[in-house]
Amino acid sequence: MMDATAPIGFIDSGVGGLTVVREALRQLPHENVMFLGDQARLPYGPRPAAQVRSFTWQMVNYLRAQHIKALVIACNTATAAAWRDVQAQLDIPVIGVIVPGARAAVKVTTAGRIGVVATEGTVASGAYDAAIHQQNSALTVHSMAAPKFVSLVESNEYKSDLARRVVADTLAPLAAEHPDTVIMGCTHYPLLRPFIQAALGDDVTLIDPGRETVVELATVLDYLGLANRGDHDGDRSFYTTASPTMFADIASDWLGLDDLHAQHVNIEANRTTLFRMPSSMGRWTKLPSPGSHRRWSSPRRIRVRCASSLISLLPAVSRFVVWRILMICIPLTRPAPPSLKTPG
Amino acid sequence: MMDATAPIGFIDSGVGGLTVVREALRQLPHENVMFLGDQARLPYGPRPAAQVRSFTWQMVNYLRAQHIKALVIACNTATAAAWRDVQAQLDIPVIGVIVPGARAAVKVTTAGRIGVVATEGTVASGAYDAAIHQQNSALTVHSMAAPKFVSLVESNEYKSDLARRVVADTLAPLAAEHPDTVIMGCTHYPLLRPFIQAALGDDVTLIDPGRETVVELATVLDYLGLANRGDHDGDRSFYTTASPTMFADIASDWLGLDDLHAQHVNIEANRTTLFRMPSSMGRWTKLPSPGSHRRWSSPRRIRVRCASSLISLLPAVSRFVVWRILMICIPLTRPAPPSLKTPG
Repeated sequence: MMDATAPIGFIDSGVGGLTVVREALRQLPHENVMFLGDQARLPYGPRPAAQVRSFTWQMVNYLRAQHIKALVIACNTATAAAWRDVQAQLDIPVIGVIVPGARAAVKVTTAGRIGVVATEGTVASGAYDAAIHQQNSALTVHSMAAPKFVSLVESNEYKSDLARRVVADTLAPLAAEHPDTVIMGCTHYPLLRPFIQAALGDDVTLIDPGRETVVELATVLDYLGLANRGDHDGDRSFYTTASPTMFADIASDWLGLDDLHAQHVNIEANRTTLFRMPSSMGRWTKLPSPGSHRRWSSPRRIRVRCASSLISLLPAVSRFVVWRILMICIPLTRPAPPSLKTPG
Repeated sequence: MMDATAPIGFIDSGVGGLTVVREALRQLPHENVMFLGDQARLPYGPRPAAQVRSFTWQMVNYLRAQHIKALVIACNTATAAAWRDVQAQLDIPVIGVIVPGARAAVKVTTAGRIGVVATEGTVASGAYDAAIHQQNSALTVHSMAAPKFVSLVESNEYKSDLARRVVADTLAPLAAEHPDTVIMGCTHYPLLRPFIQAALGDDVTLIDPGRETVVELATVLDYLGLANRGDHDGDRSFYTTASPTMFADIASDWLGLDDLHAQHVNIEANRTTLFRMPSSMGRWTKLPSPGSHRRWSSPRRIRVRCASSLISLLPAVSRFVVWRILMICIPLTRPAPPSLKTPG
């Protein structure tokens, strides 16, 4: 059984995912947290989906080797490109930010008009539209890409007048559609929240998918009996593919942690698909991933397990068969009775 | 495998649970919904926990016979008294309203001061305090019972001046504790929301656990592959232990459904604990309940299943053993060679 004290892994293309980590520290303070940001190759937004998927797998494989009990893809672009693939192949819960964000929008919408602001990659994937319509096909969704927002945040310009102007200009077409609810569909955007709210109007409800993702994470951990029931703050570890000093500066500021240290890691050597652990490490096969209880309990899975148990029993069965044969045959192979003996 | 088009069951002591159903119709319009309200024996709030548990099991057993795919205990008092018991014994997901409400409060609290208004039974159980502290032990929780609120709603007085005065008087001690977030810990209370908000102040965030419960329901159904992906409105069935006409009047009004019909049912004949279905009905054993994937995948469960499969294979194994014995023994029982024959 997976250890409830094992850390939760968070991956992101840059520092945006720290907005999700901040929510995790606030909502689940007793959990141990491990964050890996791929600053060296950000932004993911404009990259082709196949490349984003490949980079995401490199991060996933790095954190799996650290024995995480659950994985949060704290990046909308990576979630859109790789969540289903990673979720299907990993034996731990894998939570993306898109479905929780979509669900929260469906919850709070009053007029059924939902807007989505995201990166080009996320908008092109149609992942938010699909997630919203899967739950309620009658809702209207307007999506738009806002590629400039990420660089405003990564360059620490997110409180500037320039940021205010860029946000207002970019969101004008969305505001004209009069959505009642807007999803900030990139983990960087909540840092621009005051400007986004001003551009869309005070009566628009803004959704921060990262915040909702942590609620879904808590739900799934509870459901699997994997919540860490400690009473002190968890450990936090931070890894980056770029400069650890620069990363630590931003992360300490965002997370309000004084003694934050970050470590540089090289993940490009990792395989770009699932790296299967040797079976002796076994822990990845012991926990059901989302949907895997269906697989565990499926008749086929049970048959496979029973067949392997039967095979392991074969030596004992063979010994039993040989013993029974001997017991039955011994009387038949005894010397012929004296009357049948050849004459002496 | 459980059918995703099977209905979701909702149970409540009265009509309060309809506030949860209303959220389900709004957030999950394609799901089929079945509601059972025990109006004949409301309110549950002042009853002893053992009696509430017994009544709850009667409702649970009634809805299980209707082949529901998931159960929502849409009543805080019943959740506090029976949720863990029902969840442990049923093979379908069982969602109570308390944990989702607690999680939402942990999510939105800004100053870490959470208030809970609930029935006497819920407050006495300490279930909200436990759920909040399990997630974050540093938060402060103030709980208070407001028994008069339920009768204000059930008597359709919830918009009256009397209701405003009762709410203001009742909540004055809680307001003095200056909570930043308050959980409306009874499904009747959201109907008093304007008066509750006025009594506590506009800067207090009110949590409607029913609304959050539907988000948790959606999460768990998605996780188990049980979400109904239709594109038309689901069917809705309503059962009550009291007058169906009176029930239908209130329910049509609350849910905004014109052609709502309710049916009277007698559930007191149902057992007050788990009624096990005959194994030929089988459906209850096919779906993992919350946490049951751990049981499914536990070595003991696998061994039990393998043992039963082995037993079912015994006839075939016996035939094989007998056949091998015969094949081996036949040459030994052949007539002795001519040279050994007794002299003619």
